[in-house]
Amino acid sequence: MAQAASDLTIRNVRPLGGPATDIHIRGGVFVVDTGGGDSIDGGGALLLPGLIEGHTHLDKTTWGGPWHRNTIGPTRMDRIANERAWRGATNHDAAARSLALARAFLANGTTRMRTHADIDPGIGLDHVHASLHTRDALAGSMDMQIVAFPQSGIVCQPGVAALMDAAMAAGADVVGGIDPCEIDRDPVGQLDIVFGLAGKYGKPVDIHLHEAGEMGAFSLGLILERTETLGMHGLVTISHGFCLGMLPIAERDVLLARMARLGMRIATTAPAGIAVPTLAACRAAGVTIYGGNDGIRDSWTPYGEPDMLDRAMHIGLRNGLRRDDELVWALECVTTAAAAGCGFADYGLTPGCRADLVLVDAETVAEAIVRRPPRRLVVAGGQIVV
Amino acid sequence: MAQAASDLTIRNVRPLGGPATDIHIRGGVFVVDTGGGDSIDGGGALLLPGLIEGHTHLDKTTWGGPWHRNTIGPTRMDRIANERAWRGATNHDAAARSLALARAFLANGTTRMRTHADIDPGIGLDHVHASLHTRDALAGSMDMQIVAFPQSGIVCQPGVAALMDAAMAAGADVVGGIDPCEIDRDPVGQLDIVFGLAGKYGKPVDIHLHEAGEMGAFSLGLILERTETLGMHGLVTISHGFCLGMLPIAERDVLLARMARLGMRIATTAPAGIAVPTLAACRAAGVTIYGGNDGIRDSWTPYGEPDMLDRAMHIGLRNGLRRDDELVWALECVTTAAAAGCGFADYGLTPGCRADLVLVDAETVAEAIVRRPPRRLVVAGGQIVV
Repeated sequence: MAQAASDLTIRNVRPLGGPATDIHIRGGVFVVDTGGGDSIDGGGALLLPGLIEGHTHLDKTTWGGPWHRNTIGPTRMDRIANERAWRGATNHDAAARSLALARAFLANGTTRMRTHADIDPGIGLDHVHASLHTRDALAGSMDMQIVAFPQSGIVCQPGVAALMDAAMAAGADVVGGIDPCEIDRDPVGQLDIVFGLAGKYGKPVDIHLHEAGEMGAFSLGLILERTETLGMHGLVTISHGFCLGMLPIAERDVLLARMARLGMRIATTAPAGIAVPTLAACRAAGVTIYGGNDGIRDSWTPYGEPDMLDRAMHIGLRNGLRRDDELVWALECVTTAAAAGCGFADYGLTPGCRADLVLVDAETVAEAIVRRPPRRLVVAGGQIVV
Repeated sequence: MAQAASDLTIRNVRPLGGPATDIHIRGGVFVVDTGGGDSIDGGGALLLPGLIEGHTHLDKTTWGGPWHRNTIGPTRMDRIANERAWRGATNHDAAARSLALARAFLANGTTRMRTHADIDPGIGLDHVHASLHTRDALAGSMDMQIVAFPQSGIVCQPGVAALMDAAMAAGADVVGGIDPCEIDRDPVGQLDIVFGLAGKYGKPVDIHLHEAGEMGAFSLGLILERTETLGMHGLVTISHGFCLGMLPIAERDVLLARMARLGMRIATTAPAGIAVPTLAACRAAGVTIYGGNDGIRDSWTPYGEPDMLDRAMHIGLRNGLRRDDELVWALECVTTAAAAGCGFADYGLTPGCRADLVLVDAETVAEAIVRRPPRRLVVAGGQIVV
């Protein structure tokens, strides 16, 4: 699918909607000038860096398969139990589906991604291996981080702690966790395992925290304590963090200030119907917040598009961003902030960065987010993929 | 654009995802059987009734023009003042833009619509006439209701009460109002004019109520009192009604029960970042709630698509609808509930109804909403328009 283009100049493009310029690629990275090679006319299109999916679940998707009729109950526990039953009943092929979805992301200009791979006693490491297979299949185009994700809990699920350890040994990039009070009923037990594995493998942590209000604040406090004590500055992400949208503002701001001091990040899907940490509050506190789709067309949710401009639109809608200059914040959630938050190296449009880019016909960043036009050109690692 | 098809059979279609059947059209309405005429293969596609836009502002849109860079301030008053300045500075052509947007709606299967036309001292009746022109241009295809809408207030704006009267005389279908406390600073003054015109012309009322919390509840109470006293059962819509998403549940439910008793309806855009009346609460109380986009790509907001399946998706997201059977409620907001709420006659897929329909390739209603596929066929008033 990728076409070789070791020396490539793209003429007449407007980085982030700024003045027209040319951009040069050699050996898979942006350079000041190639002095030759192939040349493409960018036609004055808007130039964006490769887009970043900061939180998804490739392994759960039905993408590319028939429509999944959703009949789940209303609670998170219903959805977890339903998913385990559905996997068994449908012989869900996590490897094939995750690769199809990752390719759809790439075609829409997503060139970096953090995906959470389920681990539970039923599937063991199957989804981790499926995700590793997808990572290998797209190596060179998609820079993919895999989170070892204990969807059904760690302490309360026999053998999951050992499976998490094995997943990290097998090549997972990030240690996951989930609702240490609500799901595991033993917050210290879960967090000791999660942070223990992070220390053992020298890897970052990314914890799903759906817990509401004061319970979420309590779990977040435990995570903050461990982040500080273990010196994990800049290595811990809170995914969702709904409690930060529910607490009294004064209490929320105390937590955000501690998160900022410890370089703790927030991944948000900006759901329409749930209280969330806002971009305004996080920006004011100096906390990096970035975007992700969460699951797409899976047994949890029918919604979602493998397009980070679409997610940026939802982030804009959820945060009431209307001005062109405000919508740039939404783009940052799926570009620079996600790169900083996930720790993707060599990111950006400047010389020396990995040559990932997207061209779309739009006047401003805001127009690209609102209209989500077809991708005119996608380059990943210096290769033309669209 | 419309192709004549007085006798038409569409074979092999699945109404709302049910079993495959044939559907017959004669003389612009659905009939039990034509016994002849043209025949089209529906290919097993999903059949929906014509979609309904229950609350939009065609006259404000920039649709079909260059991208509008949005630099507005954060309050509603900023946006109202900004819009007046923008209209003057750009020579906004409300007639041409509104027709372009209405045609885009029609191409996506919207065959009925309620649009609010601005009236203020600066533009007088220009936008009402522009909207009437669009209504005439699409007569036979698009069944359009025009609301005489005092965007900048009535009592506080010299001459607007007389302009509202003239708009109704010129052919507007609904008397509009807006935030009688917050904008006019004289709720009784505004509501007496609005309900007075409704009585004079025998027309329904549709009031924008953005007012928050207890202020909104106060205005809603005044509207309820007039609806009851004047015997306007089933003739009053509250657009937005954000206060119903902010009040304590017990207080909200008292208001919803009164609204149900008086047949008062709610039009919602289901915005992601604002408290809203929920589908669950309205359904439980027996209040009809239906959907609309509000403005699309105008000086207020960059967002929006002229596609009611897209709005149904946002309604689903905002209300946390995940199951296939729940997403049918979102479709109802842009079909049957909107027909009942706006009072569109002869609506539906049964014999005798106006022959408006949409065909899409989808297995279930939920899939149609989530994927928003290209329209395979649109019929309006018995004519094929797509």
